[in-house]
Amino acid sequence: MNSLNVIKIGGNIIDNLEKLQQFLQNFASLPGLKLLVHGGGKIASAIGMKLGIEPKMVDGRRITDEQTLEVVTMVYGGLVNKNVVAQLQANGCNAVGLTGADANIIPATKRPVKEIDFGFAGDVAGRETINVTALSAFLEVGLTPVFAPLTHDTQGSMLNTNADTIASVLATALAQQYKVNLIYCFEKKGVLQDVNDDASVIPSISEEEYKQLKQEGIIAAGMIPKLDNAMKAIQEGVEAVYICHADDILNITASGSSLGTRLHAVKG
Amino acid sequence: MNSLNVIKIGGNIIDNLEKLQQFLQNFASLPGLKLLVHGGGKIASAIGMKLGIEPKMVDGRRITDEQTLEVVTMVYGGLVNKNVVAQLQANGCNAVGLTGADANIIPATKRPVKEIDFGFAGDVAGRETINVTALSAFLEVGLTPVFAPLTHDTQGSMLNTNADTIASVLATALAQQYKVNLIYCFEKKGVLQDVNDDASVIPSISEEEYKQLKQEGIIAAGMIPKLDNAMKAIQEGVEAVYICHADDILNITASGSSLGTRLHAVKG
Repeated sequence: MNSLNVIKIGGNIIDNLEKLQQFLQNFASLPGLKLLVHGGGKIASAIGMKLGIEPKMVDGRRITDEQTLEVVTMVYGGLVNKNVVAQLQANGCNAVGLTGADANIIPATKRPVKEIDFGFAGDVAGRETINVTALSAFLEVGLTPVFAPLTHDTQGSMLNTNADTIASVLATALAQQYKVNLIYCFEKKGVLQDVNDDASVIPSISEEEYKQLKQEGIIAAGMIPKLDNAMKAIQEGVEAVYICHADDILNITASGSSLGTRLHAVKG
Repeated sequence: MNSLNVIKIGGNIIDNLEKLQQFLQNFASLPGLKLLVHGGGKIASAIGMKLGIEPKMVDGRRITDEQTLEVVTMVYGGLVNKNVVAQLQANGCNAVGLTGADANIIPATKRPVKEIDFGFAGDVAGRETINVTALSAFLEVGLTPVFAPLTHDTQGSMLNTNADTIASVLATALAQQYKVNLIYCFEKKGVLQDVNDDASVIPSISEEEYKQLKQEGIIAAGMIPKLDNAMKAIQEGVEAVYICHADDILNITASGSSLGTRLHAVKG
């Protein structure tokens, strides 16, 4: 089995031109098969505001109405995605920019309306719905897929989907054909023992240890959805999940690396 | 050699939701290998204006300054391209949306500044610069590439490129591997003998006849760049070029079709 790194880069790096350039340069020089998922960043809200579209939030969660869907389709699928692709090309990485609609790779369903109507938010059923054939064909001809956080409903409408979710569902779907590392890059050095101490990175967490850390309240509340997602990916066949600083991707998967947090099935 | 239809759809169809839907439904049902290139439409100018970016024209020609480049990257590469892809998917056509930056398919150069500085306008050297390997890999796995009128400079910047040019350069590059028909769809029924008479479609024009029609001043001035482009494609190995109404694509390549104008190398 070939190895494949599935890497997610967060919105706050996307918003910073210099940091983004540095990250893309590092990403381009990563050897082997790889795939990038990028977040949206604040630029969509900024452009939406200029177009007179106020961000709509309910209980602190963003609502994707029709106008917002147009903005995220433009900004994530066009502006951000194509500039990332152009920069990777400039760094010698043969990138191809995609959304979940392209090659029908990520069919999704519009989130059902319960207490809140999230609008055009796309939920992905799971790895079994991913069109792995097209995706691995891209990888096999030497291309590096770059995903915007967008899917489609297969009925003609684009949908807004969380980038962490896209990264994890693609990683688990591809784990049937590749030895997959899933790497979440963000602005912290890893999962912290103490949220106020950047040096308190927990180097390694097994499934058993994760349960214990959660029980003891050591994991910060904001990290729990990301880590639940990560643990699910491991249960579904992903080799290891890394949570690390965007600056550390070149070293993170090296054996003996002391950077970031490594999540894995068995303690060790 | 397999047959391949390279189809260009103009901006005025893109701007009309209903006409676009009808066109995409027809396009989706075309049998065999196919590729779509779409124009930009007026929506980019409309969104640019809302964002406070005035269209800049010099001698009637559009200038792509940095802000305009952002808008066309968003609108052509994101909003238009992904909505076309989503609609094709809904019609059972496995489309993948691309720009010239994706898979480095269309490397271009920023137009040199002479009397006019066109800004981020991309010129394509010719069919020999096209990355046919990636493109035919997409076709061979059953995908239908959908191109936005954008290229890149291979140094990290996107560029704005005319959709007619993209259609013709892709058609000629692919003519080395496929029997290519290049079909320009627009709002007229073909090349007209009399611009004021929609019924005066010239059914067939050979290279010899084209020279004569141009000399006699029968071809409308506005059509000459498109037809020069088309004749060049034929000289470079494209089987035939059709110029027709967007409504007629399902019939246009059928033998004995009396629709549109067919340009070809030899009289007949």
